[in-house]
Amino acid sequence: MLNRNSLLLYLCTDRALSAGRSLLEAVAVAAAGGVTMVQIREKEVVSREFYKLALELRVLTRCLGLPLVVNDRVDIALAVRAEGLHLGQTDLPLSIAREIVGRDMFIGVSVGTVEEARVAQRDGADYLGVGAVFPTGSKSDAGEAIGLERLQEICGAVTIPVVGIGGVNVLNAAQMRRAGAAGVAVISAILSQPDIKAAAEALSQAVRDF
Amino acid sequence: MLNRNSLLLYLCTDRALSAGRSLLEAVAVAAAGGVTMVQIREKEVVSREFYKLALELRVLTRCLGLPLVVNDRVDIALAVRAEGLHLGQTDLPLSIAREIVGRDMFIGVSVGTVEEARVAQRDGADYLGVGAVFPTGSKSDAGEAIGLERLQEICGAVTIPVVGIGGVNVLNAAQMRRAGAAGVAVISAILSQPDIKAAAEALSQAVRDF
Repeated sequence: MLNRNSLLLYLCTDRALSAGRSLLEAVAVAAAGGVTMVQIREKEVVSREFYKLALELRVLTRCLGLPLVVNDRVDIALAVRAEGLHLGQTDLPLSIAREIVGRDMFIGVSVGTVEEARVAQRDGADYLGVGAVFPTGSKSDAGEAIGLERLQEICGAVTIPVVGIGGVNVLNAAQMRRAGAAGVAVISAILSQPDIKAAAEALSQAVRDF
Repeated sequence: MLNRNSLLLYLCTDRALSAGRSLLEAVAVAAAGGVTMVQIREKEVVSREFYKLALELRVLTRCLGLPLVVNDRVDIALAVRAEGLHLGQTDLPLSIAREIVGRDMFIGVSVGTVEEARVAQRDGADYLGVGAVFPTGSKSDAGEAIGLERLQEICGAVTIPVVGIGGVNVLNAAQMRRAGAAGVAVISAILSQPDIKAAAEALSQAVRDF
């Protein structure tokens, strides 16, 4: 089951944005800086490669005591026994994914509107990824930024926890928390920084003392 | 369970090679010409789109009484309750996929050598796709043609049924059957032909009267 505190500082991986470091190295250092959950997200690799990368992260996150979430691929999530699955609006429908993975795996869904948020909650999502709250260069498919007001509106419309994503930094991470988010999800705000651990520590503090 | 006769004329889909026809239309006409099994293979679409296409084919193949096989994506196979799953050498490992889908879904594996064939049989494959037997332009990742002798060698090395794939035509389809193959798998030999039904009928006859 998903612990709300795991959503505080949610690291999504992207090898292209990891400044040449290995995924394992980057995640290990980020975890030392206070990351609370890790999502593996791979769009350009064959299944076997995705599986191998996820398996490596599986071993690491288990050592670190962090939940591992697999983006999009229900089969990879099952294959590595991930704690969670994350679905975008162009991934498998939540209801179908839920039938496949059952109740043991938590499922998060990306939403950008109150309507999408309500539908996802109704269909059994365990948390929502809401964004892009601020403009981001990390996800090419993120769409236009929705802003803090919309984030707050969505947080008020559902009872499941919400994670703010998109253009996160130390200042707006605290703003997202004040808007009602249980935490923030980041890629480049940690992975692309020269000092990953320091970046994670600063964000970790921001989402705790907001 | 997999019926050996289903492997006689195994149609793999490729929308890029379907000469502008819809997948449903092409498969329906090919089935009228004698196709015995259908595999959906999509490499360039998001999961939701793959799922929708597979669901359409699911409805059609059920009406036609043909087994549906999903290439690579274990989750899509489960989502549409496909009869079968097909794994290439860069997809999820067979043993992992088997754990996920259980015994009800049959699994085929692509192999190009006797060693790969033996490993796949040992790991529980229900059939093998062997090739490319002849040079093919349909699959960019098919590798060099292995020829009829290697096909025969592989057919002799395993007890599970083997399907020949790659550069199939009416003449060599019969040769592959004489080499021990339970059937042939085709893409463009049916889908890219001006008369899909006639192409399927000719191949269907070739694999039956060899």
